[in-house]
Amino acid sequence: MTSEGLPDQAILPKVDDRGIPLSDIASWLGTELQGDGSTLILRLNTLQDAGVGELAFLANKSYRSQLATTQASALILSPADAENFDGNALIHANPYVCYARVTALFDAAPRPAAGVHATAVIDASAQIAPSASVGPHVVIGARVTIGERVRIGAGSSIGDDSAVGDDTNIAANVSIYHGVSIGKQGTVHSGSVLGADGFGFANEAGQWVKIHQLGGVEIGDRVEIGSCTTIDRGALGNTVIEDGVILDNHVQIAHNVRLGENTAMAAYSGIAGSTTVGKNCIFAGQAGAVGHVTICDNVQAMARCTLSKSVTEPGSYSSGLLMSETPKWRKNAVRFGQLNDMALRLKKLEVFVDEKLDESLSDAKREANKE
Amino acid sequence: MTSEGLPDQAILPKVDDRGIPLSDIASWLGTELQGDGSTLILRLNTLQDAGVGELAFLANKSYRSQLATTQASALILSPADAENFDGNALIHANPYVCYARVTALFDAAPRPAAGVHATAVIDASAQIAPSASVGPHVVIGARVTIGERVRIGAGSSIGDDSAVGDDTNIAANVSIYHGVSIGKQGTVHSGSVLGADGFGFANEAGQWVKIHQLGGVEIGDRVEIGSCTTIDRGALGNTVIEDGVILDNHVQIAHNVRLGENTAMAAYSGIAGSTTVGKNCIFAGQAGAVGHVTICDNVQAMARCTLSKSVTEPGSYSSGLLMSETPKWRKNAVRFGQLNDMALRLKKLEVFVDEKLDESLSDAKREANKE
Amino acid sequence: MTSEGLPDQAILPKVDDRGIPLSDIASWLGTELQGDGSTLILRLNTLQDAGVGELAFLANKSYRSQLATTQASALILSPADAENFDGNALIHANPYVCYARVTALFDAAPRPAAGVHATAVIDASAQIAPSASVGPHVVIGARVTIGERVRIGAGSSIGDDSAVGDDTNIAANVSIYHGVSIGKQGTVHSGSVLGADGFGFANEAGQWVKIHQLGGVEIGDRVEIGSCTTIDRGALGNTVIEDGVILDNHVQIAHNVRLGENTAMAAYSGIAGSTTVGKNCIFAGQAGAVGHVTICDNVQAMARCTLSKSVTEPGSYSSGLLMSETPKWRKNAVRFGQLNDMALRLKKLEVFVDEKLDESLSDAKREANKE
Repeated sequence: MTSEGLPDQAILPKVDDRGIPLSDIASWLGTELQGDGSTLILRLNTLQDAGVGELAFLANKSYRSQLATTQASALILSPADAENFDGNALIHANPYVCYARVTALFDAAPRPAAGVHATAVIDASAQIAPSASVGPHVVIGARVTIGERVRIGAGSSIGDDSAVGDDTNIAANVSIYHGVSIGKQGTVHSGSVLGADGFGFANEAGQWVKIHQLGGVEIGDRVEIGSCTTIDRGALGNTVIEDGVILDNHVQIAHNVRLGENTAMAAYSGIAGSTTVGKNCIFAGQAGAVGHVTICDNVQAMARCTLSKSVTEPGSYSSGLLMSETPKWRKNAVRFGQLNDMALRLKKLEVFVDEKLDESLSDAKREANKE
Repeated sequence: MTSEGLPDQAILPKVDDRGIPLSDIASWLGTELQGDGSTLILRLNTLQDAGVGELAFLANKSYRSQLATTQASALILSPADAENFDGNALIHANPYVCYARVTALFDAAPRPAAGVHATAVIDASAQIAPSASVGPHVVIGARVTIGERVRIGAGSSIGDDSAVGDDTNIAANVSIYHGVSIGKQGTVHSGSVLGADGFGFANEAGQWVKIHQLGGVEIGDRVEIGSCTTIDRGALGNTVIEDGVILDNHVQIAHNVRLGENTAMAAYSGIAGSTTVGKNCIFAGQAGAVGHVTICDNVQAMARCTLSKSVTEPGSYSSGLLMSETPKWRKNAVRFGQLNDMALRLKKLEVFVDEKLDESLSDAKREANKE
Repeated sequence: MTSEGLPDQAILPKVDDRGIPLSDIASWLGTELQGDGSTLILRLNTLQDAGVGELAFLANKSYRSQLATTQASALILSPADAENFDGNALIHANPYVCYARVTALFDAAPRPAAGVHATAVIDASAQIAPSASVGPHVVIGARVTIGERVRIGAGSSIGDDSAVGDDTNIAANVSIYHGVSIGKQGTVHSGSVLGADGFGFANEAGQWVKIHQLGGVEIGDRVEIGSCTTIDRGALGNTVIEDGVILDNHVQIAHNVRLGENTAMAAYSGIAGSTTVGKNCIFAGQAGAVGHVTICDNVQAMARCTLSKSVTEPGSYSSGLLMSETPKWRKNAVRFGQLNDMALRLKKLEVFVDEKLDESLSDAKREANKE
């Protein structure tokens, strides 16, 4: 199952009240089937909790012992695990990826019908594909283009000259400003704001003079944007999110940032202005990067780590502290304020022991030897 | 005043332009009254700033000296403090709790009339209690149930198969997805998002494959949710917020988290996926817990503390650093990068002093004694 | 160009498809012009990227070498730099401030026409200036006043007794509760929430009793509020944001905070309840202050710094750690947990070396001398 040979997301096999035969799932996925293909699957569940009519998966070796006891009607297994399992199975080199694909079949999220709701306010110059669904109270500005099968949830607003590509799903109460381009097959969750002004001001004798933000936002294909996430428009030129990027909730992307393909950012992670982040980077919760730096591909910033300068070597970076009981922590935290002093004292002691002490000892020996 | 004997929140005594007699407040609360019950109370205020027509409270001993000088028309006092005060007073074992209850009488927040606004878009299969108030431009999906006296603010959206319990207050521009159940007497402030997809993806050769989030969200009774707070739906099974939980603004609850009863989380605190948090825990600002761990009851995570593993002992936990002037901080922060090295050097020095030095001194003595 | 002699923001010279003559910009700004005033300017751009029809600026000396190679049609330069430049230039003592002002001319953000959209729901008692623009699906409560030339974006909601001053711009999907007053010439970006309840609860035997938040929010003139930012209403009395404050995205201002004039707060920075912050302070990303403290004027809190007590001296404050490679970081982070122990051991070693060692050496010498 390569990128070239993906199951067709547009034509999902239907799961009705009786479930779906395991063989239908296998043929849609293009995976090998072991056991009884007529087994009806109603739901997905964990290996431990799954029962009759449920499909589970084994992706983490530490749960392998549950293979003997699971009550699931079928499993998603690696070829090696399948050899040691007698029951029904879908066999896939990467069971976790296979599980991810199968979730699409069991997603009960409402699929609104195509068409524009009577309460939506659409500028006459906007172009909306006939297969798109535009929900109640949506507002769409001048010259906006909305692609095929796009869904726009209730109360969302899209500013002039913006565009949403085919199959992208905009949830309710999303705010998209003017001049924001979103690619295909993306998702934007509720409460997120794309294209608000970057935080740019010049200081004149203490007062802030606003720098109007003249750029826009360009978002690639297959980009997932969580809820309450903000991507600011560029000051001059665009803020750019490349294909395949995934952003969790409460993420902040400042003006003129560029995020490379397939980079992932967890909740509260943020990138300050004009920073370029490479491909396949991972930012854990509350991690981030300062402005005007360049982060190379394949960097992982651990929780609460600030990438405070450019990073040229792939790998994992950290800052922050480990937790401890507060009374113990307090003693150590106070000592942090003395750390430079401690370092200087340690050095002094080493010098003293190395030199002065040797000398003293020599003196002592000399004295001793004198006799 | 126990949980069993609460003042009736549904039937609040009315405060008109002349105020409300102190005795009416006392009888509603069921508290003892000292002084003139006909005193009219117009407002609440602090002990220091209160004047004529105002009711204040003493909850913090360090303000006790203000009892002699306060201009308040009446006070809420503990029995002990009331003995030393000649003026009008409501006497309560816990004056701060008593003050909290009295605030309900003076809340000027608009109480919209029952009924569904003409601009709201309600699915025909939704069940809305006659006493509920549904504001302008609200959108309510299929099979949604809305309880008695519920208020739903302008522009909020509630997805299919969700439910809101009696007396819960949903503010304006709240986004509630499908399959989200909210209990009674709760509050959800503006900009919050309940039931958006959890952040789940499988990585296949660098590309992220979305794991559709098939679970929902279950929220108990008396839960307060601040503004711009996000609670994601479960991947398999539900994300669960138990009764009495209070969440501040910008809180993030990831998929399949369970928050125990009466746990409180301050702004920007977050819990990563599949973590279970016990009852009566407190997370200070920007505190949090990593995913897939279990936090026992009665844990306090101080500001910016990450609970980075399971916690089995109640108590207070910290990480993070104390503030200092930046030039001083910089020196110490640089030394942090040398801390392991310092520890090794310290150990070496100790060993040297303990052993080698003893030996050298002995040698010196031996040499000396040889003579 | 002093505060007294600002260019008139209300009457911007028009930039048409052919651009705007440089001399028109110069006269609007009141700056000195060098070179050909008839040069048409279509856009702004960076010194490095600007080409024909584009105006650039030099504010940072490190780019001065680009003066020789820039293809821009005109530059904004300091008097000193203008002397060494042959081309067209606007000459200004502070080129960055001058650039900031000029951005207003090139801002393509839509300017909706005056008037109230047919789908907006306006209480009969609200007063809306004729020059204001109220967008689709906006909801405005009782006794609200909306000033001249105010713009209110689609889906925003303004509660009873609130007010928006002249020339303030409220974007789409902003939630403003009752009793919130916003001054003139401000901006509130999408997803932000002004006047939600402060996070106030009294604890009674483990259960949280809500403290109704009876105060409001007062916001001065020229205040910029980013997206997904929250400013809570006061418990008693108001939360106050003074003139000229600028707040980025995801900022949290708790109840009864006062922010002094021209203070700036970057993304995720937050101030806990009842804290007073002085004028011209700067909070970097994820910086903040604890509750019930006072921060003097001209304080800078660096990224992730918590001002954990009152600050009485202007200057820069920090906490947090520098980044390092994770394996190296882990070793140092573990040592942090031993820091107090290390400090005690270091002290012991110093004492030993100072005293006991001296003594031992003396003993050794004495022994030696005895012979």
